[in-house]
Amino acid sequence: MKVKNLAKIDVKTVIVERKTVKLRKPVLIEGLPGIGLVGKLAAEHLLRELKAEKIADLYSPHFPHQVLMKKNGTIRMLKNKFYAWKNPKKDGHDLLILIGDVQPITSESQYEVCSVILDYFEKMGGKTMYTLGGYGIGKTSDKSRVFGCATHKEIIAEYKKHGLVFGETNGSIIGAAGLLLGLGKLRGMNGVCLMGETHGGYVDAKSAQHVLEVLAKIIDVKVSMVKLVERAKESEKFMKKMEKEAGKQKQVAEGGAQDEELSYIR
Amino acid sequence: MKVKNLAKIDVKTVIVERKTVKLRKPVLIEGLPGIGLVGKLAAEHLLRELKAEKIADLYSPHFPHQVLMKKNGTIRMLKNKFYAWKNPKKDGHDLLILIGDVQPITSESQYEVCSVILDYFEKMGGKTMYTLGGYGIGKTSDKSRVFGCATHKEIIAEYKKHGLVFGETNGSIIGAAGLLLGLGKLRGMNGVCLMGETHGGYVDAKSAQHVLEVLAKIIDVKVSMVKLVERAKESEKFMKKMEKEAGKQKQVAEGGAQDEELSYIR
Amino acid sequence: MKVKNLAKIDVKTVIVERKTVKLRKPVLIEGLPGIGLVGKLAAEHLLRELKAEKIADLYSPHFPHQVLMKKNGTIRMLKNKFYAWKNPKKDGHDLLILIGDVQPITSESQYEVCSVILDYFEKMGGKTMYTLGGYGIGKTSDKSRVFGCATHKEIIAEYKKHGLVFGETNGSIIGAAGLLLGLGKLRGMNGVCLMGETHGGYVDAKSAQHVLEVLAKIIDVKVSMVKLVERAKESEKFMKKMEKEAGKQKQVAEGGAQDEELSYIR
Amino acid sequence: MKVKNLAKIDVKTVIVERKTVKLRKPVLIEGLPGIGLVGKLAAEHLLRELKAEKIADLYSPHFPHQVLMKKNGTIRMLKNKFYAWKNPKKDGHDLLILIGDVQPITSESQYEVCSVILDYFEKMGGKTMYTLGGYGIGKTSDKSRVFGCATHKEIIAEYKKHGLVFGETNGSIIGAAGLLLGLGKLRGMNGVCLMGETHGGYVDAKSAQHVLEVLAKIIDVKVSMVKLVERAKESEKFMKKMEKEAGKQKQVAEGGAQDEELSYIR
Repeated sequence: MKVKNLAKIDVKTVIVERKTVKLRKPVLIEGLPGIGLVGKLAAEHLLRELKAEKIADLYSPHFPHQVLMKKNGTIRMLKNKFYAWKNPKKDGHDLLILIGDVQPITSESQYEVCSVILDYFEKMGGKTMYTLGGYGIGKTSDKSRVFGCATHKEIIAEYKKHGLVFGETNGSIIGAAGLLLGLGKLRGMNGVCLMGETHGGYVDAKSAQHVLEVLAKIIDVKVSMVKLVERAKESEKFMKKMEKEAGKQKQVAEGGAQDEELSYIR
Repeated sequence: MKVKNLAKIDVKTVIVERKTVKLRKPVLIEGLPGIGLVGKLAAEHLLRELKAEKIADLYSPHFPHQVLMKKNGTIRMLKNKFYAWKNPKKDGHDLLILIGDVQPITSESQYEVCSVILDYFEKMGGKTMYTLGGYGIGKTSDKSRVFGCATHKEIIAEYKKHGLVFGETNGSIIGAAGLLLGLGKLRGMNGVCLMGETHGGYVDAKSAQHVLEVLAKIIDVKVSMVKLVERAKESEKFMKKMEKEAGKQKQVAEGGAQDEELSYIR
Repeated sequence: MKVKNLAKIDVKTVIVERKTVKLRKPVLIEGLPGIGLVGKLAAEHLLRELKAEKIADLYSPHFPHQVLMKKNGTIRMLKNKFYAWKNPKKDGHDLLILIGDVQPITSESQYEVCSVILDYFEKMGGKTMYTLGGYGIGKTSDKSRVFGCATHKEIIAEYKKHGLVFGETNGSIIGAAGLLLGLGKLRGMNGVCLMGETHGGYVDAKSAQHVLEVLAKIIDVKVSMVKLVERAKESEKFMKKMEKEAGKQKQVAEGGAQDEELSYIR
Repeated sequence: MKVKNLAKIDVKTVIVERKTVKLRKPVLIEGLPGIGLVGKLAAEHLLRELKAEKIADLYSPHFPHQVLMKKNGTIRMLKNKFYAWKNPKKDGHDLLILIGDVQPITSESQYEVCSVILDYFEKMGGKTMYTLGGYGIGKTSDKSRVFGCATHKEIIAEYKKHGLVFGETNGSIIGAAGLLLGLGKLRGMNGVCLMGETHGGYVDAKSAQHVLEVLAKIIDVKVSMVKLVERAKESEKFMKKMEKEAGKQKQVAEGGAQDEELSYIR
């Protein structure tokens, strides 16, 4: 068997390009794991419906030091992934879609990973980002609103037209959905965080659908929602597994929880 | 919309100058969040009364990885801010006032942020610093003293004249209010920490007023206290919000508190 | 007494070569401490039976900041160790066996240490790795299976012949046993993690034996198991001591547990 | 007032030389805070009795981010300190004595600080180190033994002559007392850790005296013990204060213990 030397990672976050593509006025869409898995479900469904192509993987020493065991008997690293979609419309924006298994957990590592993502997007000539997430309200609601929060006042009016609700959220946006916009703004980029109203206490495919409906209008694509719920179930199952493994690592790190012998791994 | 590329931040603390000003014999006044919010209230009131102008923002990967959602529907990064005030008096000292949302939480990151601040101040030709804070005594007191602690024995007498009480505090000064003086002293700077006597268990606008009264004498400016209490309320409200968000991030980091599903964000 | 200047370590993980050997098509076998000590027992027994020779030590600032006191009145650093074994068979693979006292505890430091190990192995011209460990099932079992998880689908069939069971594990492989394969794969290497079915709650010499039996077939060597149980007891005793010391350090780090005075060490 | 620019510290551990001295065959004696304060008391008493001269300060971003308030109304940074003593005997060893307020708390920072210390000692031409500490046995004892643990087997016999007991300790030596020897050995240095038998639960001036008596024989100096108890009391008082302040910082870091408002400092 002949395999390629793809990357030498030590203590830096790196993006490994699997395919070099040239994107036209690319727009970044981020859907990493977060509240209610809303952003992740929306972004994953979008890329599957659009048949977007995976072009790069992001690996980071700030992700948990584990590899996942797949059903086919092989292992794989934890990572984030970039997918590209070429817009068939003349003068339309191509899409760069970011999904992944995990987000890093400390401030310093979030800043590093977001900076690496922005470097990559900047080099492609990107300017505009849509980050997707949930806005937990701690109860169920049948309003199904999708809230927006923008990098610049001047662009809000444009997004309101597509149904985004501005100025009715407070608090902060934690993680990549917020930091990509904040750090991107400092580099001269712009964008909006789309947050689906959600309970916050469970995986919410319905909220993901509402987010995706608004996003589809903004980026002017058609997206069938037929398979969304089914995919949401897969995704939930996977994340439950991730949670469990993260818990094990935490237990190990803290010196072996209940059973003393378990902690020999240190 | 055309926006500027202001800064590329990755894992370094950076100061982004919004305006280049030349300050004459500048004095640094620090009022970051601390005990009883005393320093923050005093510094914020001072800069508003003097109509000081914002000249720079400090961003750090050591601040929480969140962006704040503003009422107008936009986001903003957490940061510290520098304000400049030109002294109209001939031969008077100009002021460089430092306030902000947060202080970093680990020793290493406090050292880094304080060093970046001192580099900036040093480049401006600054020599003298006044750091503002509260001195918690765990009970209420009607003495309203303002304690001082200086970098050098030789300068104490001068400050005593303005009402600062020396030699009656013990323990340590935690965070930027102490470290700026300690690290600055090693660079050949000097200064005093002004600490308002306070309970320590609540936001104390009265103590902030006492600190500001002494500081005003030292830097020889007139400051009306009329709006101080009102501003203190705003500030308290903001910090309560910050606290709440910091708590959420901590919950996320620790793997999702009460409700398991909440922790998917990792 | 004349001693050599071997290494100057500060905040980097380093490998100190005690002897330079040229290995022929070397295969890396990793057996660091982990679940049930299965990998460690198997690797240690293998290297003693083969009379492999120690050629290098790995030191890391990410290991606990302690030195062990030996019975002969001397101290020694915590470390990982590399042993080399020259295969007498023409065209056989030489072995590079990695064992050690500890694994680092954070993601970032695991990535660093694994990268240093891979650099060393790569420089030797190595391509294939076998990492050894336990697969905890939370109960006793008399099936004595040895599970496998490979870097590439294409190599699974070959290993099945030797009795490895693929596709019946799920979850993740935590630590070096997983990360060496994951990071190695990105560099163009390949390999398999051999996991002995074990309870997970105690040191399991029987499981280590099963792992070693499969491994011996794969690498085509004969290994007597006579002394395995006896060595397992030594190893368990040593790890219990390590655990206890790690606990003390944790206590110190957290500010002195029960007895206040104890924490003066900080 | 004219002050010197002594040092620009950011995120590195640095040694600031106050005086350049040339030491003859210097021996390093380390007495940083540790179990029962035994090492600290012994080293401090030694340097005062010998009237050793302070020649350098060590500052580190890994020390707590606080400054101490002194009784005279000034602040000072936390630090470690080096004292030099010129041996009047022809062909005697000069001494470099290391004491300090704190030791860093994580492995990585202990490795960094110890490496900086060793660099400094190495540049001076030093080869031999005596690190001082307590050996906690969890109960009182009237045996008053002083245990030794050496870098090399070959040097044990020499130290036994002076009353050090070898081979009767087990476990590990945590912190600088162990790591200086371990890292120094890798650089070709040698040395012994002198551990006074002590309860471990209180400050033990008696044990410090026993350690010092043995050390005095080894380095061939006369030391009066008259003032040792009195100095031990001072030292204990100071360390109690340090403990209290460290506790406050920890409370702040963890988000404000009992009283919510207290945590505004972050």
